[in-house]
Formats: sequence, C-alpha cells, structure tokens
Amino acid sequence: MHSTMQNYPLTITAILRHATSVHRARRVTAATEGGYRQCSYRELGQQAAQLANVLRRIGITGDQRVATFMWNNIEHLTTYLAVPAMGAVLHTLNIRLFADQIAYIANEAGDAVIVVDMSLAALLAPILPRLDSVHTVIAVGDGDTAPLEHGRKTVLRYADVLARESTEFSWPDLDEYSAAAMCYTSGTTGNPKGVVYSHRSSFLHAMAVCTSNGIGIGSTDCVLPVVPMFHANAWGLPYAALMAGADLVLPDRHLDARSLIGMIEKLRPTVAGAVPTIWNDVMHYLEKDPAHDISSLRLVACGGSAVPMSLMRTFEEKYGVQIRQLWGMTETSPMATMAWPPPGTPDHQHWALRATQGQPVCGVEARIVDDDGTVLPNDGKAVGELEVRGPWIAGSYYLGRDESKFDSGWLRTGDVGRIDPQGFITLTDRAKDVIKSGGEWISSVELENVLIAHPDVIEAAVVGVPDERWQERPLAVIVAREGSSVSAEQLRAFLADKVVRWWLPERWTFVDAIPRTSVGKFDKKAIRARYAQNDYAVSEVRD
Amino acid sequence: MHSTMQNYPLTITAILRHATSVHRARRVTAATEGGYRQCSYRELGQQAAQLANVLRRIGITGDQRVATFMWNNIEHLTTYLAVPAMGAVLHTLNIRLFADQIAYIANEAGDAVIVVDMSLAALLAPILPRLDSVHTVIAVGDGDTAPLEHGRKTVLRYADVLARESTEFSWPDLDEYSAAAMCYTSGTTGNPKGVVYSHRSSFLHAMAVCTSNGIGIGSTDCVLPVVPMFHANAWGLPYAALMAGADLVLPDRHLDARSLIGMIEKLRPTVAGAVPTIWNDVMHYLEKDPAHDISSLRLVACGGSAVPMSLMRTFEEKYGVQIRQLWGMTETSPMATMAWPPPGTPDHQHWALRATQGQPVCGVEARIVDDDGTVLPNDGKAVGELEVRGPWIAGSYYLGRDESKFDSGWLRTGDVGRIDPQGFITLTDRAKDVIKSGGEWISSVELENVLIAHPDVIEAAVVGVPDERWQERPLAVIVAREGSSVSAEQLRAFLADKVVRWWLPERWTFVDAIPRTSVGKFDKKAIRARYAQNDYAVSEVRD
Repeated sequence: MHSTMQNYPLTITAILRHATSVHRARRVTAATEGGYRQCSYRELGQQAAQLANVLRRIGITGDQRVATFMWNNIEHLTTYLAVPAMGAVLHTLNIRLFADQIAYIANEAGDAVIVVDMSLAALLAPILPRLDSVHTVIAVGDGDTAPLEHGRKTVLRYADVLARESTEFSWPDLDEYSAAAMCYTSGTTGNPKGVVYSHRSSFLHAMAVCTSNGIGIGSTDCVLPVVPMFHANAWGLPYAALMAGADLVLPDRHLDARSLIGMIEKLRPTVAGAVPTIWNDVMHYLEKDPAHDISSLRLVACGGSAVPMSLMRTFEEKYGVQIRQLWGMTETSPMATMAWPPPGTPDHQHWALRATQGQPVCGVEARIVDDDGTVLPNDGKAVGELEVRGPWIAGSYYLGRDESKFDSGWLRTGDVGRIDPQGFITLTDRAKDVIKSGGEWISSVELENVLIAHPDVIEAAVVGVPDERWQERPLAVIVAREGSSVSAEQLRAFLADKVVRWWLPERWTFVDAIPRTSVGKFDKKAIRARYAQNDYAVSEVRD
Repeated sequence: MHSTMQNYPLTITAILRHATSVHRARRVTAATEGGYRQCSYRELGQQAAQLANVLRRIGITGDQRVATFMWNNIEHLTTYLAVPAMGAVLHTLNIRLFADQIAYIANEAGDAVIVVDMSLAALLAPILPRLDSVHTVIAVGDGDTAPLEHGRKTVLRYADVLARESTEFSWPDLDEYSAAAMCYTSGTTGNPKGVVYSHRSSFLHAMAVCTSNGIGIGSTDCVLPVVPMFHANAWGLPYAALMAGADLVLPDRHLDARSLIGMIEKLRPTVAGAVPTIWNDVMHYLEKDPAHDISSLRLVACGGSAVPMSLMRTFEEKYGVQIRQLWGMTETSPMATMAWPPPGTPDHQHWALRATQGQPVCGVEARIVDDDGTVLPNDGKAVGELEVRGPWIAGSYYLGRDESKFDSGWLRTGDVGRIDPQGFITLTDRAKDVIKSGGEWISSVELENVLIAHPDVIEAAVVGVPDERWQERPLAVIVAREGSSVSAEQLRAFLADKVVRWWLPERWTFVDAIPRTSVGKFDKKAIRARYAQNDYAVSEVRD
C-alpha cells in the first residue's frame, strides 16, 4: 500500500514563496550608522530575484558556492534566500576567524563568488589573492573598492548590478536533500570542518524553531537575531522568521549593549537570540542606566555557552524578560534542545531545570555514552559524552573529514554531561576541558557558573592544570568588577558551601580579560598555555 | 556537493520514542461513565508495545490494515502509536457512516483486524459478516461479545491479550514515505474515497500543529481533542500532543455540553478542538447555567464548517476563550490554514479576518482557479475553486479513485472562495452548494453566518432552489429558538442591511431540525430533495 500524499519537497524555495506571498507585508528592519533601513518581505523577494539573476549572469550554475562576508542586514538576508533557492550553496564565512582559517575554508569549499560588506573590505582584501576559486566579489555598500581589486577578481557593486536585473526569477524545482548552505565549525583544535545543510534540514529546523517547544516564533512576533548570520545561520532565526511571517530586526554591526537596547526600545522585538556575553553586557548597561524598557521581549534564546543562572534570574525578575537556554552547535543546525521545564514544576526545581541545557525538541534524540561507546542510563547521575541524532544533525563533515566524530548514525558532540529521566541534559564540560582530578571528574562549567554569581565577579573561567599529586587540579581565572578588591580566599569561601570540597580550586589568578576564541568563547587552550608559560600571577590558597 | 546531514526518517516511531522517553511523565486522561482513567506516556508506550506484540502474534505483518471502531480514549490512542510504528496501517473507521459505507470502506481497504469499543459492538456486529478481509476482532471494554461472534471472526478481549504480552517491542526502521494511516472522506456524493497518510506527512503535520502559526501546542499545554479520532485523525491533535509532550484529555463518548464542561472544569485543558456545533452547544449550556469556568482554555481550534462570528465573539468576550478557525479536510491531514490576523490589525479588520478560513501555514500553498483551470489573482475579489498543495496534502486517492480531484500536483478542494493579498482565504461555498442566481453567485455560507447571529435563530441552512426567472434562488431553512415567534419577514429585514439586496431569500421554512450528514454537517443534498418533494412548508416573502 502506497501513501497517497503529495511529493512536496521541503525547500528554502518553499519558505521564500510563503514569506513573499502570504507574509508579503511583513518587514525587515536593519540598523545603520545613524538609523534604520526597511523593506517588506515582498521587496525582499524581489531583491532575491535580482540577486539570483546577477549570479546566473556571472556564471553561477548548479551547486556552486556563493560565500558571504557580511553582518546581519538586508543584503545578507537576501543571499539567504537567493543563493539556496537558485540551487547554489550559501557559504557564510565567519568574519571573526583568522586569515589563515578563512583562506583554508574558502578554498576547501571552492567558493566562486564572495558577497562582502564594504565595512569588512579591509579585512577581506589581504586574504582575497589567496582564494583560488573566487572569481567575483560583490561589494555591498559605499566606499572605495580599490583594495578589493588587488585580488585580481572581478569586483561588482551590489546595488548597481541588482538595479539592472528583473525582479522576477524562475526558481528551479529542487530535491530537498540537495545542499543549501554550508558553515564551518570554528573548533579551537585542528582545521575547521565543513557542515553542509540540505534544503530539508533547513526547512525542518526552521519549523522546529517555530514550534512552541522551540522558540515558538509566529506571525505576531518580531525577531532580533543578534547572533551573527555567519554563525550557524544565526541559529536558524532568519529562516524561522520568514517561515512564520514574523518581522525581523537585524543589528548589522551594531552589537554593543547601548545600540541593542536602543533597537529594542524603538523596534520592540518580541524574540531575540544571542550568546550570554551579549546579555551580560546588556544587564550591566541597564544596571548603570536603568531608564530603558526592554519589556517588549517575551523570550530571549541564549546559548553558545552555558547561561549563568544569575543572568536568567536578573532578566526575569528585574526586566520581565524570560531567557531560555538553547543548546546546539554548527553540526546541529544548531537548535537541538531547549530548557522548558514541565508545567507545575516547583519553583526551586524550575530554576534547576532552567539551568540545564534542556530537553531535545521532537526530531532530535540524545544519549550519553562512556569511553567504550556503551550507552549510559538517563538517570541524572551517569556522566558521559553526549551524542545526538535527527533530521537536522550532521552525519559527516564535508569531504569526509574527521570521521571520529560520528558513531554509527549519531554525532559525537564532544560535550560531556548527564541526562535525567525526562531528557533534561546537563553539560558539565567539553570533553577536552574536563578536569580529571584523582581519577574523578571536576566540571569547569559548574565552577564557572557558581563563581559568576558572586557580585564582584564579571567573568570566570576554570581550566585543569597539571598537579603532581592529583594529576590535574582546577585553576580559576577571574575578571573582577572594576574597583573591587575581592580576593582568592573570599571566592574560595564563597564556593565552599556550593560545591563539593575536593572541587575547590587552590590556584587563582585575576586578569583584565579572559582569552577568547574567534567566536567569543573562552579559549581554554590559550588559558592553559599561558598558565604553562607562567604568564599568569597565580595565588595558591589552601585550607 | 552533497549535504552532510543525517538521513533521519520522519516517522510516527520517532514521535513514539520521543513521547515515551522525554515526555514519559506526561499523562493521558480519558473520561468514563462515572469518572476518569489515566496513564502516563511511559505506560502508553508499554501498552503500545503490548498491542504490537498481540498484532504480530495474530499475523499482522508488512503494511496490513488494522482498523479501529472507537471513541477518543486511551486504547484508541494506543492503536495510533502501535499500528503505524510496527509498520502496519491504521484505518480509523468512521462510526457515524451508514452500514453500507462502512462495509464498502473496510472491504476496499482490506482491513485484517478491527479494534472495536464494546459500546459500539451492537453497531458493528450486523456489518461484520460482510467484512471479507477481517479475520480478528479485538474488543475493548466489558460486555457480552456474543453479537460479535456471529461474524465468524476470531474475537479477542483487548485487556486479556495485552496482559499476556511483553511491554517491549522492537520497532522496525521505516521509510518515511511508507503508509502509516488511512481515512476515508465522507463525501455526500459517490462512494467514500481513501486517503493514505504517510509517516512523513503525519510527522510534518503534527509539527505544523505545534508551530505558533498552527495551534502552538507545547509541553505546557493540555489538549482536549473533542473532534473524533475517527475523523481525519482528530485533526492531528493526538500526534501533536505526543510530539510536544502536552497532556491529553480524551472525552470518549461523552460529547454533550454538560460532560465537556465538566471535563474542562476538572482537568483544565488549555487547548481544545471541535466543530462549531459542539461549541454552539457549550455556549447555549453556559447561557442557561453560567456558574462554570472554562477559562483554562487558551485556544479553541474550530473547523469542519464555517465558524459563526457571533460564536467567536461570545467565547472571547464572555468567557475569555479564543476560538480560531482552522480549515482543512481529510485530504489535507487536515490543518491547511489557520486564522491568525497579523499584529496591529485594527479591531474591525481583526474580526473580519478571524471570520475567514485563515492563511496557509508554511508548507501549504493555496490558489484559486476558474472553471477553465486558469489561476486567479489573490486580490480579495476574484472567486474560484480553492486548490492546495503541500507535504501533508493528498495527491491522489487510494486505488486512484476520482482523479478529477487532482490538478497537476494540486488538490482540488471542491470549495469556492477568494484569497486576499495576504493569503487570507474566504470560502463562500462548497462548489456544489453555490447558488447561481441570474448569472451571479450567492454564498449560502455567508447568508447562514448572518442569520445565525440573530438571537432567535439556533441553526440556519441556505440552499439554492430552482427559480423560473433567476435559474436559482436561495431557500433559508431555520431552526428557531424554543418559544420564539420570529417570522420570515423579520429575518429578511434583519438581513437587509447586512447583505446585498439581490441575495435576500424570498423562500423561508421553519423546521425542528436540519438534516445532517453522517459527520454532522448540513446535508444540503437532502434539504434540496425535501424542498423538491414539498416536504417543507415554505413561506414566500417579497418586498
């Protein structure tokens, strides 16, 4: 017996058609230096058609790669629609990577064209001559394109070439399994690895973001993706907003707390997504300058690193804004889990569950395995490496790189943690950041979460450092509040009743800034290296 | 370039795994004669495994059909999981069809087993001997199974046979395109036609129901599907609730207003779905007996026939309960559109849009075509037959019946209406119920909607009847409130400033009840026949 259902492919083209017809009147607003620019979804669709015409004219056919080197703005959103819908593959280059990484990535992906924001031209120009496959650069915005010309590439002006094209394009019928977009992981070890999203995975992920157990984006929302569109497709928020017919607010390069608060007050987004650092900045800004209203936000999705409980409670209790943890990675599109405690959960347990990485959304399955690959029980106690599978989870890397990350149909996340009987996942560490002390594991992340709740601590990173007796012991790296004289003894005392005794760090160092990776996460490899090179003034505190 | 995403099939098995693990503690509660029965989703999964073991033991393999003849209860929900997840096909027989139709349907589908509720045994027993392919009947509940034995089938007791089986079952890996369930349309003309849902279409439809632009079911919800589980899979609400980890309340056969209000007060569902007639009954009950609280409902999805504006306003203004129109049919799984006006819509326009059938949810595309198949503009004026397409829309009927309903990839819905520029669909009639008067179309549905708003009108149906001068003119069939002496003249005057002059019916008849089809819709074919046979006392009113 055969199903009698239509064979309707799940494609970004379907999102494009839906957004630009049914939701044609909805608006995307992008921040600029002095104000805002706007267009309707109908106009966005016309611009996408113009861009697709330009790309066809300069020879883009089949599944060739069109790269972007862009902030979150209307032109970047246009590439999100035009490139996959014309059958080509959108490759969002991460502008925060090092030049060598960018060159490696663009060459491996074989990018044919790069769409670059003129504010980033100076960053791209020196790399351009090394990008062998790139033949054309399309420059968005004003300014001198001369530096780009040195790359021996054809340089076109986005506005000029689009203006000459038709606002209609005959979007091809596509197989839902075909490649739509690619992102590279920004791993701190080894070369970056490419993840190639399909039309199907992008469509399903956007749909999952629109479900209530995801972010629940609907046509009454206005969405502010602060998370960069070059980072795991801005958590799928742009496609989800287009699918739902929600308005979009794009911050371009204006990512400081003051600019963001201004945008929120003026444009009143209901949903936003950004890493904890951003919301930490917003919180500190509002503490100093409380006469701002961010209450239009019904939900802030927050992920990329563990979200401190203190941050969530402050936003909810002081500003009426709910922060919910989302967990995922480039390989998971990225939304895999969301922290929504079940209804009727008592208050203290509610907050304990809010502090977890959450439950898998339907479509995603999660399990933990030990070093031998044995599946461990979801009893809230056993600790192992998290593995996930699902229709928007990577099953390999581009060109088959690093096969060790895949375990017969499951993605090995490199995260270590436990799962409770209801599927709530608590990640205690990156596998490579776990501190192994006297044969037992200490969670650097849990120590960091407690430390950050101290009123004098602005940032805290904990890494394992060699110890003669215990093999490894934790080192706490602290950024203290300006003017504070908090001591290692005081912080150790603060920790004492919150974690088990043998977790208490003996080694402490106070710094002005914690080294970060190109995507803004703590660079624990660099921290360990600096410790090893005696770059830190370390105080030792013992009882 | 190939996508690197996992090849993870979208199946009801995935919903089963998710619901019974991550959401294992959530509960399904079913109404009984004197109270309620409950089980957790974990227990539901164990019962599904037991049922699958029973079905394998009695020879169900491959894609054989397992039929149900059941109310909305835990056992029916168990078949929803067990049958498709074991690879077989769930065939929900509509208990309200005529015996001949049921026999025709079960034979065409080739049902091998029927799971029957003992409260329906007397209804099924006389048909059973005519069901050639059925070899086993599984009887749910207590009572004498003797009448079923006359059908020369093996009769098993559900509780007895399940109790002997393991609560584990090795669910097979399934292709997402394989058949999962089938429903027959209950068309008033011709033989019923089978729609075969795939695992993929069921998964995607459930996901769409969980999106905010759908019904937005999430883990904080408790869902009451009043719409029968034998009717278009209860609008997909059971699968959506399982996917979302929402609690379920199943009313079994207790569908009268008093029972439903009792369930709502006691179990506090947040979402419910039922046809307008049910909510009309609830409204009238609450008018007489207002000391009841139905405010736990945040959203009532309502469809199956046009939802009167007066009903929506009364629920919202008097009881704080939002009714939203959903439009669909068996062929569309059924949710195709939902009426969510965009934010910021002025009040009068908001209500005008709420009265439409709504916008397509993402994944569904809609268009209107004229008699020649030419696509008409979405200008809110052109009227034509509605056609839809999408991943959960039928592309054919089982065994290729009635190919005229499909138009190169689109389903011809048989509904006539217009679409506005934002995709809001207003259905003015069934194609076969449109009244053609003097070369112009009169919408029977719009006349009915205005009439039902009159305080003395309980029900109103309008059909076209032959007219010498105008070819057809409307006949209004009215059920007046008990004790009311409202006249045709008064109702015509009531209509006069609400519809164009030439729509005003001259022919009126007052009846005790309007003929309905087996699924409770106005049977306009029967109304026209009674008019033709002079069964009605018709008053003629002219100016």
